[in-house]
Amino acid sequence: MTHARSVGIVTPRTARFDTALPLKSGGRLENYELVYETYGELDAARSNAVLVCHALSGSHHVAGRHVGEDQDSGWWNNMVGPGKPLDTRKFFVIGVNNLGGCHGSTGPRSINPVSGRPWGADFPFVTVEDWVDAQAKLADHLGIGCFAAVIGGSLGGMQALSWTLQYPDRVRHAAVIASAPKLSAQNIAFNEVARQSILTDPDFHDGNFYEHGVVPARGLRLARMVGHITYLSDDAMGEKFGRSLRHGKTRYSYDVEFEIESYLRHQGDKFARQFDANTYLLATRALDYYDPAFDHDGDLAAALAKARASFLVVSFSTDWRFAPARSREIVYALAHDRHDVCYAEIDCPAGHDSFLLDEPRYHAVLAAWFERIEVSGENGE
Amino acid sequence: MTHARSVGIVTPRTARFDTALPLKSGGRLENYELVYETYGELDAARSNAVLVCHALSGSHHVAGRHVGEDQDSGWWNNMVGPGKPLDTRKFFVIGVNNLGGCHGSTGPRSINPVSGRPWGADFPFVTVEDWVDAQAKLADHLGIGCFAAVIGGSLGGMQALSWTLQYPDRVRHAAVIASAPKLSAQNIAFNEVARQSILTDPDFHDGNFYEHGVVPARGLRLARMVGHITYLSDDAMGEKFGRSLRHGKTRYSYDVEFEIESYLRHQGDKFARQFDANTYLLATRALDYYDPAFDHDGDLAAALAKARASFLVVSFSTDWRFAPARSREIVYALAHDRHDVCYAEIDCPAGHDSFLLDEPRYHAVLAAWFERIEVSGENGE
Repeated sequence: MTHARSVGIVTPRTARFDTALPLKSGGRLENYELVYETYGELDAARSNAVLVCHALSGSHHVAGRHVGEDQDSGWWNNMVGPGKPLDTRKFFVIGVNNLGGCHGSTGPRSINPVSGRPWGADFPFVTVEDWVDAQAKLADHLGIGCFAAVIGGSLGGMQALSWTLQYPDRVRHAAVIASAPKLSAQNIAFNEVARQSILTDPDFHDGNFYEHGVVPARGLRLARMVGHITYLSDDAMGEKFGRSLRHGKTRYSYDVEFEIESYLRHQGDKFARQFDANTYLLATRALDYYDPAFDHDGDLAAALAKARASFLVVSFSTDWRFAPARSREIVYALAHDRHDVCYAEIDCPAGHDSFLLDEPRYHAVLAAWFERIEVSGENGE
Repeated sequence: MTHARSVGIVTPRTARFDTALPLKSGGRLENYELVYETYGELDAARSNAVLVCHALSGSHHVAGRHVGEDQDSGWWNNMVGPGKPLDTRKFFVIGVNNLGGCHGSTGPRSINPVSGRPWGADFPFVTVEDWVDAQAKLADHLGIGCFAAVIGGSLGGMQALSWTLQYPDRVRHAAVIASAPKLSAQNIAFNEVARQSILTDPDFHDGNFYEHGVVPARGLRLARMVGHITYLSDDAMGEKFGRSLRHGKTRYSYDVEFEIESYLRHQGDKFARQFDANTYLLATRALDYYDPAFDHDGDLAAALAKARASFLVVSFSTDWRFAPARSREIVYALAHDRHDVCYAEIDCPAGHDSFLLDEPRYHAVLAAWFERIEVSGENGE
């Protein structure tokens, strides 16, 4: 059954690349695969392609559902589909799992062709810039010279921003949502706690746990728990859980007493079953390292000067992981150089997670922005 | 060598209690010891005693230094001493390690007289109210009928507040600093991450690690790391560490890249060597459970109605663990019932840790408040 406004059943595809990808770290990947999904149709002029970049724990599965699933499971299903802000009747939308990921693209779980064993800890460090380079190779593969738009939230927003700097002529519009031009010390600190949780888990085995038949579930669970705290606002957590007691009264125990504990444990356990620890480490380091102004003595406006895209920057009032002030840094830097930039600060109680939610004012901004993007209007072949 | 304005060399003492202490959990401690320090002299009228309550990782060692130490090591040495805000020329100051602690008072490391082995996980849950009850027994032991003041920051502030409710006639003034009337869901969430770090450390052995000759250092380290993030403001962390790179450039490694990582690891390692994991669990649960309004349908003003003390409430502008809004809840509830309350919101960049710092405006408020407290003026015997 296909629901109205759903892209329906989708099937991931895999693109294989046999030309080496040089990495920012100095290393290179001799060959690699990227798993991706597409929604909508590429028009004849190839003018309507939109790339969706995923955040820390996202994937290529942006919208719709896979065969055998009862309901839509794409992580941005409320944003992408027929009649939705990113309307698949107008746009050809691409989701791709980033290099180093654990949802099908080449990553630490993949077999290292040199050793014949999983890459594990030997998988090279990948950066936001490397991800964008790989995404550009996928665009080549799909015959897309220039994206109508690149969009992403959080770490995905950093990729959207980086697209405008690495390939200024290949992206007409960029939406940078709930993001920041670089991590703060506090941001890095939270990542460091998450990493240390994983790195010191005895089941991590220096990243080569695959060969031991275990996963560092304790570490991944803790990493996700601390992450989840930062995704929600204090108020949202208070509204949702408050001090609600699981059993109505205090039992004097380290088992679940407060509902918030149950929520965090559940989120942590679920994540530990699904996600790869090495991917988590790589992705948090990519976050830490991203700093386009670094080579410009910290001058973000100078760093962004080469961008040619029209920008939409969106932040959320209660997001304390990437607070509105961090988005405004991007806006000011763009405005300083007279770039075309729209900025929306959405009053939403849900904290950083707001960018994933179906918040009407937020979606209205996105819908209007996408509506203004011109495409050729010719149907694809 | 004794420095001016220092209480100099201090020697902890131990008081033993052989009358059982009933606990809020329903359990009881048949006997127990409390280790404490005192500074200054109790006056003849026993009118000048001030109790200092410690926070999560504090102890009885509030001021001065122990034999063999080169410099003052008391955790509130900048606050307590001759000529300091809590002036030991006027007041008789008491610091006590709380029950369940790991600095000498009876706690999980102590021998359970029934089993002949360390209490470990069998040590009973202790609450803020239990700590105050035990502190009252120490006051009896020292011949102090009524405190001139009880003071504490953070979890210590909760004890000061609870004193005014449990023993309204035994405390004339109470200073509740950087505290809250109860934890928020986010506060509990951070505690839960810390506890899960410890509880899932394979070296925890269900709390009986003493017998295995190990300590759950990984868990304690992570708990302290995540705690430290919440003690500092985002801005203070940015000011102190920013994105400073240990080696001046990115090395693509999970070793220390950013100085903030080094700081957190150092703090975590130091704490794991010194602190007891079971004490950490107990103290975070005491924080979670504290909620004087719980038995008053959440009506804090009703809960505080029985207080007779004059209050000083202090908060710090950048404290996001116990934000000024949380202190104001206490102030409003007290003012609602026409209690005597002064409130100071100190503009200080250092976050929650501000209450431990030598911030001039903060110390000026405390000095003025203590100066106004009347004591008999008669020297002790």
